[in-house]
Amino acid sequence: MSTSKAQVQSEIQEKTEHLKKLKASPETTKEEIDEVTARLAELRAQAGGKSSGKLILKTAKGTKDYGPQQMALREKVLSIIMDCFKQHGAETIDTPVFELKDFDIAGQYEEMLPDVECVKLIDEILTALKLGDFVIKVNHRLILDGIFAVCGVPAEKFRTICSSVDKLDKASWEDVKAEMVNEKGLANETADRIGEYVKQSGGEALLKTLLSDMILMGNPWAKKGLELMRLFFSYCELFDITPHVSFDLSLARGLDYYTGIIFEAILLGYSSQPIVNGSGEEAGGVGSVAGGGRYDNLVGMFDAKGKSVPCVGVSFGVERIFSIMEGKLTSENCSIRTTETQVYVASAQKGLLQERMKLTSFLWKNGIKTEQPYRSNPKLLAQLQYCEDRKIPLAIVLGQSEMEQGVVKLRDVQSREEEDVPRDHLLGAIRSRLHIPSS
Amino acid sequence: MSTSKAQVQSEIQEKTEHLKKLKASPETTKEEIDEVTARLAELRAQAGGKSSGKLILKTAKGTKDYGPQQMALREKVLSIIMDCFKQHGAETIDTPVFELKDFDIAGQYEEMLPDVECVKLIDEILTALKLGDFVIKVNHRLILDGIFAVCGVPAEKFRTICSSVDKLDKASWEDVKAEMVNEKGLANETADRIGEYVKQSGGEALLKTLLSDMILMGNPWAKKGLELMRLFFSYCELFDITPHVSFDLSLARGLDYYTGIIFEAILLGYSSQPIVNGSGEEAGGVGSVAGGGRYDNLVGMFDAKGKSVPCVGVSFGVERIFSIMEGKLTSENCSIRTTETQVYVASAQKGLLQERMKLTSFLWKNGIKTEQPYRSNPKLLAQLQYCEDRKIPLAIVLGQSEMEQGVVKLRDVQSREEEDVPRDHLLGAIRSRLHIPSS
Repeated sequence: MSTSKAQVQSEIQEKTEHLKKLKASPETTKEEIDEVTARLAELRAQAGGKSSGKLILKTAKGTKDYGPQQMALREKVLSIIMDCFKQHGAETIDTPVFELKDFDIAGQYEEMLPDVECVKLIDEILTALKLGDFVIKVNHRLILDGIFAVCGVPAEKFRTICSSVDKLDKASWEDVKAEMVNEKGLANETADRIGEYVKQSGGEALLKTLLSDMILMGNPWAKKGLELMRLFFSYCELFDITPHVSFDLSLARGLDYYTGIIFEAILLGYSSQPIVNGSGEEAGGVGSVAGGGRYDNLVGMFDAKGKSVPCVGVSFGVERIFSIMEGKLTSENCSIRTTETQVYVASAQKGLLQERMKLTSFLWKNGIKTEQPYRSNPKLLAQLQYCEDRKIPLAIVLGQSEMEQGVVKLRDVQSREEEDVPRDHLLGAIRSRLHIPSS
Repeated sequence: MSTSKAQVQSEIQEKTEHLKKLKASPETTKEEIDEVTARLAELRAQAGGKSSGKLILKTAKGTKDYGPQQMALREKVLSIIMDCFKQHGAETIDTPVFELKDFDIAGQYEEMLPDVECVKLIDEILTALKLGDFVIKVNHRLILDGIFAVCGVPAEKFRTICSSVDKLDKASWEDVKAEMVNEKGLANETADRIGEYVKQSGGEALLKTLLSDMILMGNPWAKKGLELMRLFFSYCELFDITPHVSFDLSLARGLDYYTGIIFEAILLGYSSQPIVNGSGEEAGGVGSVAGGGRYDNLVGMFDAKGKSVPCVGVSFGVERIFSIMEGKLTSENCSIRTTETQVYVASAQKGLLQERMKLTSFLWKNGIKTEQPYRSNPKLLAQLQYCEDRKIPLAIVLGQSEMEQGVVKLRDVQSREEEDVPRDHLLGAIRSRLHIPSS
């Protein structure tokens, strides 16, 4: 046994003793017990053992170890994201695991049409994840280039000045200006002129202001970029996402390869302080959860004729979304279900194992996720407690007298209300309470 | 660019030329074009480029590269398996990727109750996967030990003789007997007596025969094992799986750690010849797709008090199931859908982009997986061909005259039947044709 395994074993011993003491004390809260129990389950999983219950054990290599709660949360987040992807006709070409993903639309298409679909997708996913209010900042690289040109930046400095502008989400204008002037050699007035532009953000009103800016419109890049953004905003209107979209001239997105629209989704109410990700890289403000843009000339994208393929794509900060959702659940003192069991088949007295098994089998056959105790004569209270702990919505309580009348007791676990349901109507009653359509 | 990348590029050039020629020839079949197109898509994915369309790009490391068809198949298989697991209240404690899985029930429970649930789960999954007819062989380690004892095998040779018996699915009795006698030093008549037992298989009838075998029942291990199997078969009846279960005394499952029931599912109609898996290990007959058993004393399984936890588990040969399903699809000349798009919003004439976008957005909002062309004025035939190629079930064809009458054309892509549907009833009509309940 390796040292770390020995440490795990020793912590298991310690926590087991601790749990015993907690359970013996009348002052112990359920949360304290839950906490130690959860830690024990974790330790046992680490030790290669397992807690009692039905588990699908890990098989993937190279991924972090997660507990059942975290796994359930991750599955939920990924399934929401995948459902939205599929809603837009996406196909998967390899296993998406717990890293960033690329939803990409590649091909020579109508201008701004794939681009607005990427932004629509961000809007749908953030809405579905219920992470709170958000804004999707958009800008266009051609507009930034045009601004730099009319402000007097030499062409060879466009990229480096762009990366200075990119820092505006974390640094003040004064700091960014100092970098432009002192480190990158811009004239003071050139930097000031850039500042007048990049401080602006807003919706279509800003677009109108810029479209009537004769100096900017005199530059062919800016003109083209602004006209594309006008088209983009008209599409936002059709896709019903205008309220979430903010035209933000300070959005630059550092990566050199963007050539067209760029966008970034920010959760409001979260700090925009930079955070460092697991690989030690700075990963942007915690509020930033998705981003992307158009990259038409990227090496390696080519069609059957060897031509480069225009492409627009979006990535989601999946690990960050997990962290935010975990934090939210903790602060709201919620736990999330680790199983999807819909019905628990309990018995009120002894000798009903066979009846329970027949009923359980019948429910499985009809697609109802069902559990029943693995003991022949379990105590009723323990069974009901199990349902409440596991947040199973419905319990069937089998009893001899009800069975003789051809009915079973159907219990709503949360409200604890019980109703006698004729055996022939049981499936319908369960489906109706679970909002499952009859198949 | 590495050599292998250069090779990929060169094959892309070659296949592209080939495709051109195929398309130019009147004798080319759709299958020939499909084949080359699929290979091109694969090559492009390999080259780090991508084909046109919406893709979720790979992020996982250490997994094979799969094409969209294979990914869709893998997703389908895994989702069927996971759904069945969840139907039984399982929780996931780490990412299940494309390897074997362990569904396990750990804990001190009623005898044979978790065991029969594992066999029921195999039955459900193989039925849901529609892989054809199958049999689930079962046996019990105590019965094997009892047989060895009454046949005169010394106790220290039980395990090694057990592993000889395990070879009976691939080798003849004569070869196995020779190994027992010549290599493992059993007396000829001892081996013959074992042979009389392990050649037997059947259902409850065999169980009855053995229960009335006074010699065997005189051994306490065999007696206990046979009584447990009687209980097991009575549970099989309650779970409605008896027709698929075969009591097979030659089933031994080589692994030493099994202590109770053992089981293995075999697809009928597949060769039982051994196959070698990707790691070069022999992976059993191709027909064997799931197996497991009870392992009560395995090191590392312990409860909060440090006692060992009884455990029964089942593993699925997921890669083998993929291969079998791929082979089946190929031999039936079927392709599987790589996207889940339900509706395609097409236009019959020019100038309808805005209407298409509004309708697409409306369908997304209502949870309908929808695509529309990324061109403002696409050709109608090309749009309908796209739907047929991608097996999208429904197309909406927008036309000016229909719009003036407040209707849209709803087309069943496969039958090519069209119907004018009032715009207000469109969502209901789509849901009804797709069998989606209204939410």
